[in-house]
Amino acid sequence: MFHQVTIIGLGLIGSSLARAAKSYGLSSRVVAYDVDPSVRARVAELGIADAVANELENAVTDSDLTIICVPVGATSDVARQMKDHLKPGAIVSDVGSVKGMVCDALSQILRPDVHIVPAHPVAGTEYSGPDSGFATLFQDRWCIITPPEGTSPDAIEQVRAFWCGCGANVESMSAHHHDLVLAITSHVPHLIAYNIVGTAADLEEVTQSEVIKFSAGGFRDFTRIAASDPTMWRDIFLNNKDAVLEMLGRFNEDLAALQRMIRWGDGQGLYDLFTRTRAIRRSIIAQGQETSAPDFGRVRKED
Amino acid sequence: MFHQVTIIGLGLIGSSLARAAKSYGLSSRVVAYDVDPSVRARVAELGIADAVANELENAVTDSDLTIICVPVGATSDVARQMKDHLKPGAIVSDVGSVKGMVCDALSQILRPDVHIVPAHPVAGTEYSGPDSGFATLFQDRWCIITPPEGTSPDAIEQVRAFWCGCGANVESMSAHHHDLVLAITSHVPHLIAYNIVGTAADLEEVTQSEVIKFSAGGFRDFTRIAASDPTMWRDIFLNNKDAVLEMLGRFNEDLAALQRMIRWGDGQGLYDLFTRTRAIRRSIIAQGQETSAPDFGRVRKED
Repeated sequence: MFHQVTIIGLGLIGSSLARAAKSYGLSSRVVAYDVDPSVRARVAELGIADAVANELENAVTDSDLTIICVPVGATSDVARQMKDHLKPGAIVSDVGSVKGMVCDALSQILRPDVHIVPAHPVAGTEYSGPDSGFATLFQDRWCIITPPEGTSPDAIEQVRAFWCGCGANVESMSAHHHDLVLAITSHVPHLIAYNIVGTAADLEEVTQSEVIKFSAGGFRDFTRIAASDPTMWRDIFLNNKDAVLEMLGRFNEDLAALQRMIRWGDGQGLYDLFTRTRAIRRSIIAQGQETSAPDFGRVRKED
Repeated sequence: MFHQVTIIGLGLIGSSLARAAKSYGLSSRVVAYDVDPSVRARVAELGIADAVANELENAVTDSDLTIICVPVGATSDVARQMKDHLKPGAIVSDVGSVKGMVCDALSQILRPDVHIVPAHPVAGTEYSGPDSGFATLFQDRWCIITPPEGTSPDAIEQVRAFWCGCGANVESMSAHHHDLVLAITSHVPHLIAYNIVGTAADLEEVTQSEVIKFSAGGFRDFTRIAASDPTMWRDIFLNNKDAVLEMLGRFNEDLAALQRMIRWGDGQGLYDLFTRTRAIRRSIIAQGQETSAPDFGRVRKED
């Protein structure tokens, strides 16, 4: 499909993309570059790319599609470094969880003869690094693309086809809308998960060992996303500030109402909310975005 | 071990206990009673108890150990109903997620010649009802017992042995301390999960269909515990008000600090918290209370 796809940054997402591109035959050649020499060495060892470049410039020279897979705060630097080395007509994409900032940065930095098609695959695990990736990560997940106005339809189509080749469903929307949607479906959930794990770690009345022992009551679920990559998530919050603060404001209002129901013993109000929330999970399962196995499949029925 | 164990309430926990008691030979006879005739019929059909009683009074008459497995708000009613029908020296236990209220109620209602050993297995799934139970639910989970001062050591030992027979580890603590520990490891996590699912459902800028589609970014994790039984959870919040409000106050303070870090762009503060929270998950996995499989094992590595 492509002659050469270049992946910049070989963490969980980048290394999964390299594997998917090779496994599903999406590019004749897959070139990898990572700023960290130990990651480059590991990628060469794993054999998940056809070539590992030691300089970013060399990695992108012959590339038809370059996908930036770095924490969003590092996107501008990477774009500046590759700017003069991309061939005319090359496509540049990314996988960042924030799109407004990324679209603006890429549009300002890259040359007008390069096509910019930002993308965000809504997929991942709590593990990081080149060893944690796998080709099937994007299977049946959504990938959101946010091409700026006036982007070549052909370039958009090629990026869409690439993601479909990885097994993903592709949807297009504005970068602004993307950032609002992800604030509620991903960024605020991560924030409150990080927050409650921090709160639990700092208590005096309850020891850390008790928190760990009795975590199966619900707490342990939150520790999974609170184990996600710290640099990646720092950058997300710094670069999607407005949407995160807006959604967090709503979360806080609703939590205050819930707190009041508990204080005043409003059992009916609690019951009504708790019934309504059940339906949402059923829809997520029905649409193939979640397992119906009890406890995420963690618990096995053996009797 | 016991001649007769009686289970009152055959939901997820009660039906799992009936199955475990039979599978692991913990009682010669297991008797079941549920206030709902359709549940009684289903339990008889499933064959998970030796007998299904149509009246609570008959169910407990010959019982050595009666375990109340109903929403905590219904505990007092059940205790009042069984009071005059328990045999002298019988043990009464429960599985409620709140212990202060339950201990007080049982001590006030039951006769002095009956032994009260309240218990709380920290285990469960998001499913409810007699079909959702399974014998291995308590395997390697903790069960907390909160016997009132002066409880017969022999009765405590029998309840402990019963839970060990179900595969659980048993720890003893005061009811007051239990309620604090569970407020942070279970009750507040459920509350904020219910809350964010409610917030997401009520947005205008982001449609419900978008929330569902893009839920794999983190949101879907929260929908699991927000799908838990509404009656059970209403009762927990109404009956553990003080500890929940105390822990929620701390959560809110910490969240306000985090919100401020985002507003003012304090990347170092965010990074430090996000690094600290990773360690807690590692400890939970090391202590056997969580799987180390990526994404709770939901995602399969196939390449």
